[in-house]
Amino acid sequence: MPRGQVPVTADDGLTTRQRRTRPLVVVHGGAGKGKSTAAFGLALRGWNQGWSIGVFQFVKSAKWRVGEQTALEALGRLHEQTGEGGPVEWHKMGSGWSWSRTQGSTEDHAAAAREGWAEVARRLAEQRHTLYVLDEFTYVLKWGWVDAAEVVRVLRERPGYQHVVVTGRDPDPRLLEIADVHTEMTKVKHPFDQGQKGQKGIEW
Amino acid sequence: MPRGQVPVTADDGLTTRQRRTRPLVVVHGGAGKGKSTAAFGLALRGWNQGWSIGVFQFVKSAKWRVGEQTALEALGRLHEQTGEGGPVEWHKMGSGWSWSRTQGSTEDHAAAAREGWAEVARRLAEQRHTLYVLDEFTYVLKWGWVDAAEVVRVLRERPGYQHVVVTGRDPDPRLLEIADVHTEMTKVKHPFDQGQKGQKGIEW
Repeated sequence: MPRGQVPVTADDGLTTRQRRTRPLVVVHGGAGKGKSTAAFGLALRGWNQGWSIGVFQFVKSAKWRVGEQTALEALGRLHEQTGEGGPVEWHKMGSGWSWSRTQGSTEDHAAAAREGWAEVARRLAEQRHTLYVLDEFTYVLKWGWVDAAEVVRVLRERPGYQHVVVTGRDPDPRLLEIADVHTEMTKVKHPFDQGQKGQKGIEW
Repeated sequence: MPRGQVPVTADDGLTTRQRRTRPLVVVHGGAGKGKSTAAFGLALRGWNQGWSIGVFQFVKSAKWRVGEQTALEALGRLHEQTGEGGPVEWHKMGSGWSWSRTQGSTEDHAAAAREGWAEVARRLAEQRHTLYVLDEFTYVLKWGWVDAAEVVRVLRERPGYQHVVVTGRDPDPRLLEIADVHTEMTKVKHPFDQGQKGQKGIEW
């Protein structure tokens, strides 16, 4: 895609510099592949900018360790050793949030989801990361585990320069309203439809 | 997304194992964000599997070095040093293909694109990589620089276990016909529409 082609001129009183450094809320929705994958791809870009990356996986199973986690954590270690890129933290609800005292008791998914969101909100207030990936967070809103109005308020009021990427199907309309970027990934053709099984490297 | 849920049972005479190890042609089309980003995210997964990754950027400008390139090349170096993950090669048409004798003379884009495709076809025949990302390759077909029928033939007849991901708008229908996965990235909302400029870490 051509770089930075702007179809309209903004009339928002901001300078180009201000417009270039506006923190974004990005939503990857839709039933197709690529929602999380593209979010982790953005994390790659952010790492390269030296940003602090925080990934929060809200739904995936405890056993599920996607290849991106290993790769991004390897980049995080590279940052610690050489200073290249930025730091990376990857937290999973499925295996119990790493900071949580109740680690292991993941029976109560709603409580775990609320705990994850509370931590994200704390970090946003502290400006801990530059890029947050809230993977599959749309389901947390959809199932009413966390109040969408509260999420919207925290995101709107977040201080400083912090980008937040939310992935998952059926994003809440209130979230979409405050989203700066909203991409729908639409499945046109997928081998699962022909009985193809998921395969390593492609699905995880 | 739930892991490996298969809506229908295949009637193709293959075993589950064969179905799990079927090499795929994946197309990321559409006018939205995330086509290339999701492809590079797949490369992350592949790296984690120890796959040899070959990225071929067909259109982006010479000056354009996306963050994913730096990050994936860092992972490639990590592989050389520690054996973790797999090797990574990243080639760009914009700056002259690294293997090309005519490097630097990028005036003739059609010739450069044909040269890039010829190299990809050679590597497919040699089974050099496990995952190929042909970034923005749809335009090469669209503009008639490389014959789509020839591409389809080479992809269909490629030996062994080699995945090929093609990104770009308006993919050729003949390519879509042989695609195993086709995802359309649809722009629902984007800050460029409100005059937002591209910003580092997000657009590149």
